[in-house]
Amino acid sequence: MTREIPVRLGERSYRVLVAPFTLWGELVAPEFAERGRTAVLVTEERVGPLWAGPVRGALQACGLEIHEVWAPAGEGSKDLSHLPLLYDSFLAAGLKRDGWVVALGGGVVGDLAGFAAATYMRGVAFAQIPTSLIAMADASVGGKVGVNFGGGKNLVGAFHQPRIVLTDPAFLSTLPDPEFANGLAEVIKAAIIGDPDLFALLEERAAEIWNRNPVVLADLIGRSISVKAEIVGRDELDRGERQLLNLGHTFGHALEAAGGFERLRHGEAVAIGLMAACQLSILLGRADVIFRDRVAELLRRHRLPTHCPWASWDDIAPWLGLDKKSGEQGGTYVLTGGIGDVTVHRQVPEASVREAAAFVMA
Amino acid sequence: MTREIPVRLGERSYRVLVAPFTLWGELVAPEFAERGRTAVLVTEERVGPLWAGPVRGALQACGLEIHEVWAPAGEGSKDLSHLPLLYDSFLAAGLKRDGWVVALGGGVVGDLAGFAAATYMRGVAFAQIPTSLIAMADASVGGKVGVNFGGGKNLVGAFHQPRIVLTDPAFLSTLPDPEFANGLAEVIKAAIIGDPDLFALLEERAAEIWNRNPVVLADLIGRSISVKAEIVGRDELDRGERQLLNLGHTFGHALEAAGGFERLRHGEAVAIGLMAACQLSILLGRADVIFRDRVAELLRRHRLPTHCPWASWDDIAPWLGLDKKSGEQGGTYVLTGGIGDVTVHRQVPEASVREAAAFVMA
Repeated sequence: MTREIPVRLGERSYRVLVAPFTLWGELVAPEFAERGRTAVLVTEERVGPLWAGPVRGALQACGLEIHEVWAPAGEGSKDLSHLPLLYDSFLAAGLKRDGWVVALGGGVVGDLAGFAAATYMRGVAFAQIPTSLIAMADASVGGKVGVNFGGGKNLVGAFHQPRIVLTDPAFLSTLPDPEFANGLAEVIKAAIIGDPDLFALLEERAAEIWNRNPVVLADLIGRSISVKAEIVGRDELDRGERQLLNLGHTFGHALEAAGGFERLRHGEAVAIGLMAACQLSILLGRADVIFRDRVAELLRRHRLPTHCPWASWDDIAPWLGLDKKSGEQGGTYVLTGGIGDVTVHRQVPEASVREAAAFVMA
Repeated sequence: MTREIPVRLGERSYRVLVAPFTLWGELVAPEFAERGRTAVLVTEERVGPLWAGPVRGALQACGLEIHEVWAPAGEGSKDLSHLPLLYDSFLAAGLKRDGWVVALGGGVVGDLAGFAAATYMRGVAFAQIPTSLIAMADASVGGKVGVNFGGGKNLVGAFHQPRIVLTDPAFLSTLPDPEFANGLAEVIKAAIIGDPDLFALLEERAAEIWNRNPVVLADLIGRSISVKAEIVGRDELDRGERQLLNLGHTFGHALEAAGGFERLRHGEAVAIGLMAACQLSILLGRADVIFRDRVAELLRRHRLPTHCPWASWDDIAPWLGLDKKSGEQGGTYVLTGGIGDVTVHRQVPEASVREAAAFVMA
């Protein structure tokens, strides 16, 4: 049940290791031996009590000397105002340029700690230990780190690739069901972008997945990361192909924003966004209803929403126009004609966007 | 009197243009035409009243639409707590990923605005317009940006290369003499590292330099930048050769810190640090007293100090050991045997360091 996925980025290449944390010391000591031993483990108040102890031991087995800082839990902690807490802890630990920042937790901790690592002394080595499914399958790979500012999600950020990503499906044993579903939305997105076997696994082994079977989950996580790693390897700085990873995210982000980032989890918004993207693909002649309905069925099987009846066009329209991912031209959408058939379309007519949105807001 | 210096960094290559600002529109419009027109000009309260007006016009001639934000003047503004002022101004200007941040001022504004540009939306294009000699000759080239935190200089920062550096010797006409001398210390350092003609120019044309003769200054600035650009081009991320640029800076930084960053300007500290480096080079058999005395004479000619009688070994020792540039091995010094003969030495014996320090603190 050990998986190792390479992320190929020249001199910034690294590997993602999916393995029981008791084996990490044996498997990854080489990465850690290259640099200084001082490490600050950044975690948060929900994950810390569950996993900081075992992980501390696993990292000590890798040869690191561990200092620890706990941020508050939740999206609110991913804010510019929380950076001094981290920088202060780095200083108190005597962290130097050759040391490590290690993020233990979900996407919020990874983004916050990663940004602090990217900017402390112009960048120190960073390791990700994702504990939520969404962070394992998506957020912890690719090097996008950042904090929120002035109502803008990730408005302040950087590209800072981790030197290693370590995870263990065992962490998912303590993840609440809605958070588990939240992660599955990004896994389903990855399957559509580029892995028919992953799509089949999601369709056929839903019960084992939801029983948190570690062997099945290691496969699922590894495959999901592989899809992302391939694309990131070709477009590290998000100048082209990486936009494919935004499948479902343009609508999804607008819905999330329309709900004040409180009514929908990110993955729930992406699930609805995937439906909107399928519908838009139908309207533009790229897909048929059979594929869309297959995606809808899969989302429902994994306890994800496919519609958002409380939202209206007026709620989401400003966010579709203002989405920072769209640049100044606007109207860029990722469409899909089926599994492994995903393309970026520019200047999509507003009427079609409106119709696709109406489909998921009905 | 126009100089153009290339900084060769692969896809992050750019040029430094030293030319009357009235010619910029003609000379650099191509760089600006590649991206969106929205630009936020970041300046500060001392430079703004003198130069923001003319520069705004010059940038409009380059095709940019200019928004403006003024930070407080002085090192105190280069602090994490001032970033929200800049990010807010970027949001108010509607700055998108394809827009520009332009820094107008000395090293403080360049570092602050550059860090904001590096982190806003994970990085937007950045242009430097240095107005002080130290920023023209040194700080504006090389991509090191950052702010101070918790008493640590540049503790929070990034590497973010500008897309272009524009400057005009005319800006130096309003620079106070002590600030002018401050910049000459870095020019003298550059001359020692790699340009005998620049060293000769500094020795032979001091009067014209101090009369702020724009033709001589354009030559002096261009040569100084060339020395740095060559080295940065071979070691963008400061992993090896770029350490040569720290000539005089290990002692200099310790003296600056020992004076609470108030008793000495950076360039003054570097001038004394250059003397200490020469003396250390003599003690380790790398140089002779003739070269050291020639450097001392040049520093004095340009109104720079060569000794720091108020400092003691106890004041500077912790800073020599804790200097973040030294990593965990400690004891790394840049030595010089003469013009163009500069090398990095590791594990220099403390006794020699102490003796060299005593020489400049007498």
